[in-house]
Amino acid sequence: MGTGMVGDAIGSKLISLGHSVMMGSRTKNNEKALAFVSKNSDNASEGTFAEAARFGEIIFNCTKGEHSLDALKSAGDALNGKILVDIANPLDFSQGMPPTLLPALSNSNSLGEEIQKAFPDTKVVKTLNTMWNGLMVNPNLIGNGDHINYICGNDADAKSKVISILNEVGWKKENILDLGDISAARGTEGYLPLWLRIYGATGSGAFNFKLVK
Amino acid sequence: MGTGMVGDAIGSKLISLGHSVMMGSRTKNNEKALAFVSKNSDNASEGTFAEAARFGEIIFNCTKGEHSLDALKSAGDALNGKILVDIANPLDFSQGMPPTLLPALSNSNSLGEEIQKAFPDTKVVKTLNTMWNGLMVNPNLIGNGDHINYICGNDADAKSKVISILNEVGWKKENILDLGDISAARGTEGYLPLWLRIYGATGSGAFNFKLVK
Repeated sequence: MGTGMVGDAIGSKLISLGHSVMMGSRTKNNEKALAFVSKNSDNASEGTFAEAARFGEIIFNCTKGEHSLDALKSAGDALNGKILVDIANPLDFSQGMPPTLLPALSNSNSLGEEIQKAFPDTKVVKTLNTMWNGLMVNPNLIGNGDHINYICGNDADAKSKVISILNEVGWKKENILDLGDISAARGTEGYLPLWLRIYGATGSGAFNFKLVK
Repeated sequence: MGTGMVGDAIGSKLISLGHSVMMGSRTKNNEKALAFVSKNSDNASEGTFAEAARFGEIIFNCTKGEHSLDALKSAGDALNGKILVDIANPLDFSQGMPPTLLPALSNSNSLGEEIQKAFPDTKVVKTLNTMWNGLMVNPNLIGNGDHINYICGNDADAKSKVISILNEVGWKKENILDLGDISAARGTEGYLPLWLRIYGATGSGAFNFKLVK
């Protein structure tokens, strides 16, 4: 779900690993979705959010945080029973740069929780939202891949399945930290303002952190 | 300023390095401040917030975030012209555990900024607020001391002086990341909810992060 850089990066990586991916967008024949299909193998297709939700066993929310709930709602009940991997962050660009968080989706709430509330029959798993998209799909780009990725969600089996996919992508088990239920999304989404400041100070998005204990 | 664990840790460390420290509290002869004086050398003393502000060349705000502005205001104009190292976080324990951030001091604002606004003639430097107090004064406790400490503030000279003190305490220059002006406190304070979740998941506060690029 989503035709931006995150959706393109995740979708292309999954196809390169042998999975079939339908890129979902608001309308059929979206220009970026067609480009995604043409540059990838026969395992790539495109359709509306609802078609993508029906197609996928596991759905990746790669829409912009401010539009995620509307986009997912347009998929209707096709998300019921599915695992939804939520990678979006509720950034608010309306107050200038760097963005803040959307007030209603921050501090004592989060986008991950709000999605879980809106889709009680969907298993929402939040992960990969604390880094640049180039690292999401290629952790070995820096530090031998030894840097952290958080995961949270209410369903242990869904988290386990998502961890298997993360392992395929190159994330080592020891670098994936389970923070508990979906309310931990308040923490990982709330880290974005710090991420943006570090990006501003270092001038590159190709950074992450290794847990030191 | 502050008689809790952070104030005790910072004050005792600075005394061990040869500095003179007056621990400030709301009232004179505070029980914890007297204990601090009796366990440390002759370089330790105690007094009101106003007395401590007059005494110090550099003031450390180690009060609880929810009380910081009131505590500092009780010091009056004694803070004018001084460097104030703000270590506090605006945690809100009124909504249960883990704490959230005080809404008025989060997202598009921060405690660091609010202190700077309240004391325009004071040079506010935010640092050390992203870790357990045991690490603040002893970074070598984990990972050979190679993990990150952020600093921000509007005055370059004040940041430089605080970095010198951090070096004395054991923080290597290459592990101190300058995030820019005091508005970056939105980022470092906003990281606390994630810190608290990691603490919950790992069961120990003795952790921090090494920047991987």
